[in-house]
Amino acid sequence: MTDSGEQRAPTREGVLRAAEKMAALLPPSPLLPVEIGGVRAWVKAECLQPVGAFKIRGAWHRLSDLSPEESARGVVAVSSGNHAQGVAWAARRLGIRADIVMPADAPRVKLERTRTLGANVVLYDRMTQDREAIGRALAKEKQATLVHAFADPWVIEGQGSAGLEIAAQLGREPSRILACCGGGGLTAGLALACPEAEIVPVEPEGWDDVARSLAAGTIQSVGSAPPPTACDALQTFATQPINFAVLKERCRFGLSATEAEVREAQRFAFSQLRLVLEPGGAAALAAALAGKAQLDEGTVIMLTGGNVDPRAFAQVVWQAA
Amino acid sequence: MTDSGEQRAPTREGVLRAAEKMAALLPPSPLLPVEIGGVRAWVKAECLQPVGAFKIRGAWHRLSDLSPEESARGVVAVSSGNHAQGVAWAARRLGIRADIVMPADAPRVKLERTRTLGANVVLYDRMTQDREAIGRALAKEKQATLVHAFADPWVIEGQGSAGLEIAAQLGREPSRILACCGGGGLTAGLALACPEAEIVPVEPEGWDDVARSLAAGTIQSVGSAPPPTACDALQTFATQPINFAVLKERCRFGLSATEAEVREAQRFAFSQLRLVLEPGGAAALAAALAGKAQLDEGTVIMLTGGNVDPRAFAQVVWQAA
Repeated sequence: MTDSGEQRAPTREGVLRAAEKMAALLPPSPLLPVEIGGVRAWVKAECLQPVGAFKIRGAWHRLSDLSPEESARGVVAVSSGNHAQGVAWAARRLGIRADIVMPADAPRVKLERTRTLGANVVLYDRMTQDREAIGRALAKEKQATLVHAFADPWVIEGQGSAGLEIAAQLGREPSRILACCGGGGLTAGLALACPEAEIVPVEPEGWDDVARSLAAGTIQSVGSAPPPTACDALQTFATQPINFAVLKERCRFGLSATEAEVREAQRFAFSQLRLVLEPGGAAALAAALAGKAQLDEGTVIMLTGGNVDPRAFAQVVWQAA
Repeated sequence: MTDSGEQRAPTREGVLRAAEKMAALLPPSPLLPVEIGGVRAWVKAECLQPVGAFKIRGAWHRLSDLSPEESARGVVAVSSGNHAQGVAWAARRLGIRADIVMPADAPRVKLERTRTLGANVVLYDRMTQDREAIGRALAKEKQATLVHAFADPWVIEGQGSAGLEIAAQLGREPSRILACCGGGGLTAGLALACPEAEIVPVEPEGWDDVARSLAAGTIQSVGSAPPPTACDALQTFATQPINFAVLKERCRFGLSATEAEVREAQRFAFSQLRLVLEPGGAAALAAALAGKAQLDEGTVIMLTGGNVDPRAFAQVVWQAA
C-alpha cells in the first residue's frame, strides 16, 4: 500500500506526537454543541480546517516526518479530493513537490483547489483504471514517497489527533465517536486516540465494507457493482490490514446511511449549525439524525469535510424549503 | 428607547461582567484564520452561536440581570429576527415570558425559530407601522421590560463580550474589528471591549446612516425611501444616542457594502470557510473582500449571523458555479 514493503503499526504514542505537531500548526477545530431528538451531544467541525477536511492532519504528520532526502524526491498521493488537498497543503508549506492522482469525476471544486495549492494533478478514470497501481507506478518513477490516503501509519496517527483534541475540549474522553468512514484511517486513528470510547464507523449504504468486515471478522470488499453515492470521499472498495488490525479490536459494529439521510444531514447542518458539509462529511451526522446511533452527552459526531460543488449543495438546500 | 425614561450608560465593567456570564454559559465562538488578497486575518464566527447570531449575548446579559419581579412580568422585544431569537432563547432558559414584535416579511426561518423557542410572536408591517411604538405599547400593557435590540446598556455590554473573547483568543487586543452594523449595539459594545482597536462599522449601501452620522458628527437617519436590501438584520433607520455616544468617540468612519458584494461574501464564506452566512451577517466580510477595508494580521471580521432562508441561500450559492 505504501512504497515500502513492510509497514510499522500505528501507535498511540504516534497519535500523541501528531497532536503536538498539529497544536503547533493550527488551533483545535471547534467542538460545538448539538441537540438531536432532545439529547445534547457534540459535533467536531473538521469542515472548518483550512482545507475543509480532517485530512490535513495525517498529511501534515506524514510529510513533516520525511527526511531531507525523501522531501527532495517529493510525494505522490491518490485521492478523490480531501486527502489530495491535505497533502497539497502540507507539501506547499514544507516546499515539497506533490503529484496527486485524482478521479476525473471528482467534484470540480476539489480538483481546482488541489491545483490551487500547487500540486500536480494526474487524472484517472474511476471505473476502468486501478488508482492504486497508477499511484505506485508514479511513485516508483519519481522515487517519491507514496502517501496512502488511509493505509499508512503516519496518516492514521495524524487523523487520530482529532480524538486527543476532543478529549481536551470535553475535559474527558468521549463516551462514543461516530466517524464518517471510507478506508478507516480516521476511524483507526480515533480508536488509538481514545481507548475508552466506543468508536462507530458510518459508511454510505452499499459501501459498508467496513461494517461487513467487522461482522465477518475478516476484510470484505464492496460488491462489484456498488450503488451510486454522492459521498465521493467515502468510496473506498476495502479497508486494509493496517487499519483493520485496529478496527477489529475496537469497533463492535458499523452503521450505514442512505443517500436521503445524508442529504437530510447536510440540510440539518446548514439550518441548525450554519455549517457547510459535503455528502461524505455528513454520513455520521446522518446516522445520528436517523436514529441509528445511540447518543448521549459524551457522544461526538465527526463532521469530516465541507468541500462540495456549489450547485450540488444548492440543490440539496433548496429541498429544505 | 427602553421602558424607563432614563438610561445608564454602558460601561467596560459591564462588558467584563457580561463576558463572565457568557463564559459560564457557552464556549467562546470560534476565531478562525482567513486569507484575503494574500493577507492573513481572522473571522469571529458568531454564526456558530446556538441561535446562529451574536444577539444571544446582549439578550442573556439583559434577561439574566432582571429582578425576580421584573422576570415575573416578562419581556418584550422588537426585532427582524436575530435579536428575537436571542431574547427567546434567554427567556426560555430563564423561564421568562417573551413577546416579540417582528416584521411580517421577516425571513420565514427567523419567524419559525423564534416561535420554536417558545416566544409569542406579534407581527407588524415594516412599511406602514412604527415598530417601536408597537413594542412600547405592548410593554406598557403587560408591564413588561422592553429589551431594545441595540439602544440598551445591557444589550450593548452583552454584545461587547465578543470583543473580550477575541482578545483572549488572539492573546492580544485586535488591531481592527470590522463589524456588520444595524443600530450600533455590537459596534458600541466592541468599542468598549477593545479600547485600543480601530472599530469599523459596515452597513448595507443606502442604509449607511451610521457612516453618515459619523461623518456629520450628529445622528442621521436613512432616507425616506431606502433601497431594498437582502440584509434584513441591518435595516435600522437610525442609531440612538446611547450608541452614538460611544461610536462618535471611537469610530473614525463607517463603510458600506453593495448587495452584490454581500452575495459574493456569502459565496466566499460557503466555499472558503464552509460557513453559512445570512446577508446581514456577511456585510463586514463583503467590505473586506471588496478591498474597502484595511486588513492586517490583527484584523478581525465579525461574521454576525447565519439565519437565512434555504432557497435564498441556494440561489446565492448557485451563482458561484
